[in-house]
Amino acid sequence: MFEFKILPRLSETDGVGHIHNTILPVWFEEARRDLFKIFNPELSLESWNLILRKYEIEFINQISHDKLVSIRTSIDKIGGKSIIVYQEAFQDIRLVASARTVLVYFDYSKGSPAEIPELIRKDLYQHLHSESTS
Amino acid sequence: MFEFKILPRLSETDGVGHIHNTILPVWFEEARRDLFKIFNPELSLESWNLILRKYEIEFINQISHDKLVSIRTSIDKIGGKSIIVYQEAFQDIRLVASARTVLVYFDYSKGSPAEIPELIRKDLYQHLHSESTS
Amino acid sequence: MFEFKILPRLSETDGVGHIHNTILPVWFEEARRDLFKIFNPELSLESWNLILRKYEIEFINQISHDKLVSIRTSIDKIGGKSIIVYQEAFQDIRLVASARTVLVYFDYSKGSPAEIPELIRKDLYQHLHSESTS
Amino acid sequence: MFEFKILPRLSETDGVGHIHNTILPVWFEEARRDLFKIFNPELSLESWNLILRKYEIEFINQISHDKLVSIRTSIDKIGGKSIIVYQEAFQDIRLVASARTVLVYFDYSKGSPAEIPELIRKDLYQHLHSESTS
Repeated sequence: MFEFKILPRLSETDGVGHIHNTILPVWFEEARRDLFKIFNPELSLESWNLILRKYEIEFINQISHDKLVSIRTSIDKIGGKSIIVYQEAFQDIRLVASARTVLVYFDYSKGSPAEIPELIRKDLYQHLHSESTS
Repeated sequence: MFEFKILPRLSETDGVGHIHNTILPVWFEEARRDLFKIFNPELSLESWNLILRKYEIEFINQISHDKLVSIRTSIDKIGGKSIIVYQEAFQDIRLVASARTVLVYFDYSKGSPAEIPELIRKDLYQHLHSESTS
Repeated sequence: MFEFKILPRLSETDGVGHIHNTILPVWFEEARRDLFKIFNPELSLESWNLILRKYEIEFINQISHDKLVSIRTSIDKIGGKSIIVYQEAFQDIRLVASARTVLVYFDYSKGSPAEIPELIRKDLYQHLHSESTS
Repeated sequence: MFEFKILPRLSETDGVGHIHNTILPVWFEEARRDLFKIFNPELSLESWNLILRKYEIEFINQISHDKLVSIRTSIDKIGGKSIIVYQEAFQDIRLVASARTVLVYFDYSKGSPAEIPELIRKDLYQHLHSESTS
């Protein structure tokens, strides 16, 4: 599991101090940085090898502007050419949102999905969501 | 069905001319404007009566920066206190993305979900996705 | 002079219905599209030839979320390797914001500013702010 | 002087790894948080007492996506009802951008600018840019 902390920005806040729903995909993406590094250690844009196929975000509690948000990222499922990432965002100890994202391993030179290499796969297994391994 | 056209912004475009995945929730929200007006004819923020509970977005084809995107919005399901909205984004004639969004009718004065009034419900039925009515 | 109309987005609005200050650079950039086409008719990112060196934005009146904003773009000054663009944003007939932007003509292959070609210069003169020509 | 560190987001990056010009106002605003707290210790939106009147941003060097940006904030001038804030953004040891922002102390209940109270003024003086005090 990866943990990432984010401080809501003033420009992401509406007048009553809540975070707009369109901001969450940005935060969840930031929280996947360490996961991206398994695929691309330098986060080099030239050798980017993932495509986002789908995300699903649930808004569970209002997010206020004045407190850190902590996002936990784990892997739900490792397929041949894709993975499903599961993330939960907490403020204080309250779960405020969750996300499920499908990322496809992609060979940009061929323009098509590719098998996730064994070395990467090994690293990914260490972040597999505990409930999924049982 | 509602139709809404949007021109991708230069600031939404990466260096190879594609639209970033975090932009789609913004576009789909804009495309729900006419739907919001059924609930709130003036789009008055003081009398806002909807809460976004969940969205699910699929990225089907790359979106380029130089052509209009046309978004079609219809209703998939009308429940007692919530609706499911279905949207498709097209560029030229290609489907580039789709979204399914759960909106809850909300009484902010009581802080709880509420039954969708009959008058609003009638209007909503006119935008029910055709396949869903069969 | 170029004119560009923009409808404020729901996600750009704070809870009291005003537009956040960080959104204006995005709008003013969109309103420079026709000007960009003088330099780059297809708005092709591969042959982009301008660099933004500076902008200065004044916030004159509150911008509300529910009405079209009309942005007028003209050129204040045409230098050897750069231009100064002047823009005014109106809502109804009220001036709500203005911007002055310095754009440098740039040869990305050499990595340095370059002289604006005569053909482009001719086109630019037609959009020179009237007061500046007197 | 206040110092604030920010990690560029993946969604703020174009395909060649540079940060888009429209992002800088967002970062500079975040870096003014500690300054805002002098006016409004809890950053409470209900008792917000500043209005942004103008900003001017210079883009000095390209900002890359993979390194922390450090923003230094000081005060250039303290007027009766307004202040001028000066900010510099560094990546590694390179100055990449600077901003000058005019903030007006504002009494929202009266809808007009107001004199900055003596207590706030005293705090502000401690962050006055050194060159300005000579």
